[in-house]
Amino acid sequence: MKRVLHGNLIFAPACGTVTCIENGYLVYENDRILGTFSELPERFQSASVEDFSGRLILPAFTDMHLHAPQYPMLGMGMDLPLLEWLNRYTFRAEARFADPDYARRIYAQLGKELVRNGTTRVCMFSSLHTDATLILMEELERAGISGYVGKVQMDRNGASYYQETTEQSKAETLRFLTACERFADIRPILTPRFTPACSDELMRWLGSIANERNLPVQSHLSENTQEIALVHRLHPDTERYWETYAKFGLWKPGTLMAHCVYSDEVERKAIKDYGVSVVYCADSNINIASGIAPIRQMLTEGIPVLLGSDIAGGAQLSMLQVMQMSIRGSKMKTIESHWTTPFLSVAEAFYLGTSAGAMYFGEQPGFSAGNRLHAVVIDDRRLPDTDRLTLTERFERAVYRTEPGDIVAVYGNGRRLK
Amino acid sequence: MKRVLHGNLIFAPACGTVTCIENGYLVYENDRILGTFSELPERFQSASVEDFSGRLILPAFTDMHLHAPQYPMLGMGMDLPLLEWLNRYTFRAEARFADPDYARRIYAQLGKELVRNGTTRVCMFSSLHTDATLILMEELERAGISGYVGKVQMDRNGASYYQETTEQSKAETLRFLTACERFADIRPILTPRFTPACSDELMRWLGSIANERNLPVQSHLSENTQEIALVHRLHPDTERYWETYAKFGLWKPGTLMAHCVYSDEVERKAIKDYGVSVVYCADSNINIASGIAPIRQMLTEGIPVLLGSDIAGGAQLSMLQVMQMSIRGSKMKTIESHWTTPFLSVAEAFYLGTSAGAMYFGEQPGFSAGNRLHAVVIDDRRLPDTDRLTLTERFERAVYRTEPGDIVAVYGNGRRLK
Repeated sequence: MKRVLHGNLIFAPACGTVTCIENGYLVYENDRILGTFSELPERFQSASVEDFSGRLILPAFTDMHLHAPQYPMLGMGMDLPLLEWLNRYTFRAEARFADPDYARRIYAQLGKELVRNGTTRVCMFSSLHTDATLILMEELERAGISGYVGKVQMDRNGASYYQETTEQSKAETLRFLTACERFADIRPILTPRFTPACSDELMRWLGSIANERNLPVQSHLSENTQEIALVHRLHPDTERYWETYAKFGLWKPGTLMAHCVYSDEVERKAIKDYGVSVVYCADSNINIASGIAPIRQMLTEGIPVLLGSDIAGGAQLSMLQVMQMSIRGSKMKTIESHWTTPFLSVAEAFYLGTSAGAMYFGEQPGFSAGNRLHAVVIDDRRLPDTDRLTLTERFERAVYRTEPGDIVAVYGNGRRLK
Repeated sequence: MKRVLHGNLIFAPACGTVTCIENGYLVYENDRILGTFSELPERFQSASVEDFSGRLILPAFTDMHLHAPQYPMLGMGMDLPLLEWLNRYTFRAEARFADPDYARRIYAQLGKELVRNGTTRVCMFSSLHTDATLILMEELERAGISGYVGKVQMDRNGASYYQETTEQSKAETLRFLTACERFADIRPILTPRFTPACSDELMRWLGSIANERNLPVQSHLSENTQEIALVHRLHPDTERYWETYAKFGLWKPGTLMAHCVYSDEVERKAIKDYGVSVVYCADSNINIASGIAPIRQMLTEGIPVLLGSDIAGGAQLSMLQVMQMSIRGSKMKTIESHWTTPFLSVAEAFYLGTSAGAMYFGEQPGFSAGNRLHAVVIDDRRLPDTDRLTLTERFERAVYRTEPGDIVAVYGNGRRLK
C-alpha cells in the first residue's frame, strides 16, 4: 500500500548540501521510498497521507559507533583518565551483562531511548557475552532498529573477571554467528575490541572467517597516544597501528575504524586505498581527552567519514547532539590551525549523520527513491519566531535545539516506531 | 512559615567539593534557607514538607553572561565568521526589540525557558532599547528570575539601523536607571557593549556614573584576536585591552568581563588585583571559534570565575549543558598542553555554575543558612540503574544527562517557579 508523509522535507543529497522541499510529499510503499515531490503527483492521489504540515521531516540518524553495554554508565566517570575509566567503570559495566535478565531490561531501555532520539540504524559493540548480544539484537529488532551488532572479542589485557581465552572467543563467536541467522534487519559484525585486547592467534582467526564468510569488521584505531605506544610494543614489526589489522586480513572494504585521531598521512592513505571507513566520535575524543580527529583533512582527502556517539566515552546518545559536537570538535581544529582549516558546516555534519550512514548500508544519500524509509519528524513550533524563518534556518536551529520531546514521529524500515 | 524540602541534597561548598546529604531536609522560611539536615530537627517537626524523596535537590543555576535579544536566533548562523554573524544575525535580531509587543512576547518566552532549565539568577545584556529592557525586567520578575540586566550602550561600530548617538546613549541610560527603581529583585547594570562599540566620551561618562551611583559593570574582554587588534588601533595609548576599561573607571570590584580568552599573565593579574570577575563562556568560545579561555590557570591564580551560556554565541540555554561544555573546553586545553594542564572536574564546573554565581550576588556557597532559596529538583529515575548508584554518581550523571523534563521543580527566592 502506498503512503505519503506530508511536511517540510529536508535532506542532504551531498556533503555540504541541504535540500528543502517546503510542504512536500514523500511517497513510500512498504519499506521503500518511491520519491519526493513538491506537489503530490496524480498517480499517488489515492495514497493515505500522514499530515505533518509545518513540521520538519528529516532522514533518521545513523550511529556508527557505540557500546551498548556502556549505556548504564552514560555520563559517569568523566573525570577519570582512560585506564582508570576502563577499570573502574567500563569493564565492570560490561561484565554485568553475564546476567541475561539485566541485559533484557537494559537493552529494551536502550532500544527505546535510541528511537526516542531518532536513531534507527547502528553499528554497535556489545559485550563479550554471546547470550546478552543476542538479547541486544532481539531488543533492537523489537524497537525497530537495524544495522550491525558485534559480540566483542577480547582474549588479553582485559580484567580478571572480564576476558575470554582464545578458544572461548572462537567458539563463542561461531555460536554467535550461527544464532544470528534468525535475524533479518540486524546483522552480525566481527568486533575485535582493539589490537591490545586480541592475541595474534585470535586476530588471525578473525581475519580468516571475515574473509571466508564475507563478514564486516569494526574496531578502534589510533585513539590515544598511550594506546598507540602499547600497540607498537605488542607489534614491533609494524610501523603503524593500521598494519596490525591489515596483517591479519581485517583491513578491507567496509571495515569500520572508530576515532583515527592520530592517523597520519600514511595511515590515512591506507584507510582510503583499502576502502576502510572512519567513524568520527568527537564527543568521546573530547571527553576522554584523547585529542580530536582531523576530520576536515579526511574529507578533503576523500576518506569516507561516519559519525558515532561512542557512548559511554561520548556522553550523548542524541545524534543531533553528536552532529553539534562533531562541529565543535572540528572548530577546535580550526582554532588550533590559526583559522586556516575550515570547520565542518551544519550541512556537512548533517550529511555525515544521515546520508553517509545510509550509504554505508548500501543506500543512496537523502530521501532517494529506492531507499528504505528512515525518517524523523521534528516539531519546532515551541521555539520563537518559527513562522518568519526560512526552512534552512529552521533546519539549522533544529540541529542545535531539538529535544527528544520535539521528535514527534520516527520511522525505521517503513514502520512507524514513535 | 517554615517549610521543608525533603530529598537528596547535593551542593558545592567549595570549588571541587560536592556534599551529598542522602534523603536530607532543607528548611527555609520565606525566601531564606535556615539549614540543611540529615534528620529533621525537633524544632522543625511542624513545618510543611514538600516530599521529593529519591530525587536530587541542587542549587538552581546562575547564568552570568547572556544576551536576551539574541534568544530568537539561538542555534542559527553558527557557520558564519564573527563579523558576518554580527551583521547578518545579531544586530538584526537585536534591532527587532524596538517593537515592544515583540519584546513582550519573546521575553515572556525566555523567562519561561530559563526557569524550565533551572536558571533562576542571571547577569544579562539587553538591547539598546530602554523600553524593551524594562519589559525584559518585568518578564524576568514575573518568571521569578533575579539578578542584573543592562540596557546596552553602543555609539559606534554598530549598524546603520542599530546604534545610538553619544547623547542618546547617556539620556536613555539615565531614563533606564530611573525606571529601574521600581524593581526589587532585578537590578540594573551598566553594559557598554565592548570597547570598539563605545566612544571615549561615552566610556568616560559611564565610568563616572558607575562610581557616583555605585553601579556594577559588565562587558566583554579579549574574546578574539581581530577584536583585540581593533582595540589596539582605537586605543594606541594602552598596551592591553583591560586598560581601555580601567582608564575610564570601569575596571573595579564586581566588574564582570566575559570571555578573557587571550588575557595574558599581565591582564590576568589586573583582573585579580582589581577584583574583577571572569565569565567563562566555553560554548560560545568554541562555536564562534574564538579560542578557549585558560580557565584552569585562572582558577589556580585565584581569579573569580563564573559561567555564562552567552546565548546566542553559545547555543545552549541549559546551564547543565554549559557546565558540560565548560569541562569540554577545559579538556581541549588539557589536550593542547599535552596533558600537563588538569581539566575542570564535574564538581568544579558545578561549583562555578551554582555557588560561584550565588557568591557574586553576596551569598555563601551551596545551601548555606542565610542564603535565599534557589533550588532545582531533578528526577533521574527514567535513567538506568538509578537504585544501585551512589549519590555522587547520580549527581555526575545528572550534570550530563538531565533533560528539561527531568527538572520537576524549581525554586527562586523561596518561591516555587515550576
